[in-house]
Amino acid sequence: MSVKVITVGEKILGANEEKAKANKKRLDKHGVLTINIMSSPGAGKTSLILNTIKHLSKKARIAVIEGDVASSIDADKVNALGIPVVQINTAGGCHLDAFMVAEALDSLSLEKADLLFIENVGNLICPNNYLLGEDIRLMIASLPEGDDKPYKYPAMFADTDVVILNKVDLQPYLDFDGEAFRKVVTGLNPDVIIFPVSCKTGAGMAAWFSWLEAALKSKQTK
Amino acid sequence: MSVKVITVGEKILGANEEKAKANKKRLDKHGVLTINIMSSPGAGKTSLILNTIKHLSKKARIAVIEGDVASSIDADKVNALGIPVVQINTAGGCHLDAFMVAEALDSLSLEKADLLFIENVGNLICPNNYLLGEDIRLMIASLPEGDDKPYKYPAMFADTDVVILNKVDLQPYLDFDGEAFRKVVTGLNPDVIIFPVSCKTGAGMAAWFSWLEAALKSKQTK
Repeated sequence: MSVKVITVGEKILGANEEKAKANKKRLDKHGVLTINIMSSPGAGKTSLILNTIKHLSKKARIAVIEGDVASSIDADKVNALGIPVVQINTAGGCHLDAFMVAEALDSLSLEKADLLFIENVGNLICPNNYLLGEDIRLMIASLPEGDDKPYKYPAMFADTDVVILNKVDLQPYLDFDGEAFRKVVTGLNPDVIIFPVSCKTGAGMAAWFSWLEAALKSKQTK
Repeated sequence: MSVKVITVGEKILGANEEKAKANKKRLDKHGVLTINIMSSPGAGKTSLILNTIKHLSKKARIAVIEGDVASSIDADKVNALGIPVVQINTAGGCHLDAFMVAEALDSLSLEKADLLFIENVGNLICPNNYLLGEDIRLMIASLPEGDDKPYKYPAMFADTDVVILNKVDLQPYLDFDGEAFRKVVTGLNPDVIIFPVSCKTGAGMAAWFSWLEAALKSKQTK
């Protein structure tokens, strides 16, 4: 029996890219290192942000834009740490776009920020098509999602600068082949940097923090 | 500090609903019980389908439509069990729609099927807006995604008939509050049926199989 394959045409994107360039220019003017964080639901975007705030908030002024379909659970958690945060609710929309981010930037004091995290909507597909004005594209994959995800959602793995491989503490209980995962990801994206971490136990986080601090310094000396 | 909330307008859906009705009529004519399976990436859609095929393929004639952004990994697994399967590749599209499914139905012998699984694209947002012609809407949530997912992706939890809560074997290693999860889900959706299962160990699967066999009988006597 052979498998029948139907391919549906790609959609063309609109004016988003221009707006993203304008956002980037605005953020560059204030020297704000901006990271667009993307992942499946529940992979650990908010955990990564909260952990990084706790580690870095004495060394850098951090701000956060939270994107969600509904609720402000994540923004409330960031707010509780005393960090400026704007919640974007997309009302069912499956990704952030540069226009939403531009509106959110109006509510932040960019002159008082060194580092901006933009937590995208939990989705491995659509966010990839919408540049927001970021310096760094970061995606989180987590072990329980399985090592075949790069095959099934290749665009996001191919276009990202950093992959955080989260929940390594669950390795003993899963059939996740880390070597196979790394092989496919670097095949799609030879320049990618992969940080295996556990936001829960803290394993591997030091390497991510060091890398981020270096990126901050590099932005500030530009 | 208060959290600023920006709400983006909802988009109107097109002609999908009419096409879904036509699909439903076509499937009803042949008495095919059709289940639209939705979840985040890696929650266990394919595992559920493969396990259910293994249990049920001597009692019912099963067919599968696989929806993916890219690859035919899942369709190949179904095909290896000798089950008729059509792969829809959406080329970056984040959900199946009724038009894609109509095309896939052309490639299946509906007169030789009792049960059709449609595995949607891994995404907790967009698939919810597109009826495909299904009898049953089923979503899979998995423990590692966290118990807050119903708050953050409420539409899909509100609109589904069945929630499969997968990966219960990982409970000892996670901070997942099953009672809190159940409370929010039934709050959003009082009629929902929740099956806690592990596709890996088989825990809880018997209840799902019984329920599905009853649904099949009910469809055939209509």
